[in-house]
Amino acid sequence: MISNTPQPPYYAVIFTSEKTEIDIEGYAKMASQMETLAVKQDGFLGLESARNNVGITVSYWKDLDSIKKWKQNTDHLFAQEKGKKDWYKVYTTRIAKVEHQYSFEKL
Amino acid sequence: MISNTPQPPYYAVIFTSEKTEIDIEGYAKMASQMETLAVKQDGFLGLESARNNVGITVSYWKDLDSIKKWKQNTDHLFAQEKGKKDWYKVYTTRIAKVEHQYSFEKL
Repeated sequence: MISNTPQPPYYAVIFTSEKTEIDIEGYAKMASQMETLAVKQDGFLGLESARNNVGITVSYWKDLDSIKKWKQNTDHLFAQEKGKKDWYKVYTTRIAKVEHQYSFEKL
Repeated sequence: MISNTPQPPYYAVIFTSEKTEIDIEGYAKMASQMETLAVKQDGFLGLESARNNVGITVSYWKDLDSIKKWKQNTDHLFAQEKGKKDWYKVYTTRIAKVEHQYSFEKL
């Protein structure tokens, strides 16, 4: 689903990854858990995700401080380590300040 | 593929969409053409794309001026109109300034 984010400015974390073939079920379970957990964090505004060859997850946050706290969340840290050890071949994380947004909806 | 972007700052256009079932082949052809065209634009730095229920395309640009020119490109304008008429149920475009990036690669 497309996130119903507030008017900018706010922040986006663009996480782009290529996965290994290791422990696909474990990954899916963890990804779902992390999504449930992210939603509960202070400053969380939304999350959008899609995967083909490459996976793109964009999460939206109120400010840099919210992102920093989420990055350091204990359960999330565990998932990050497991991701580097097993699930991800390569990834890039980009932190960006959303300055403008506009939406279209077909009537 | 994950884009090999330069050191920040630079800009990201996060385009998230849900498609209709209309003219799926025509959409695929146009999406491919627009990707080929985007790569040729001044200030283009990279493009990442994935689709399941929701499609996420993130393109990276040197500055806001490059994004503005790409938005106003004649062929791209035609594609945008066709997208609103036929292909997209809903979309959100977010323009964001990338401030930080870090990558991981498994050795």
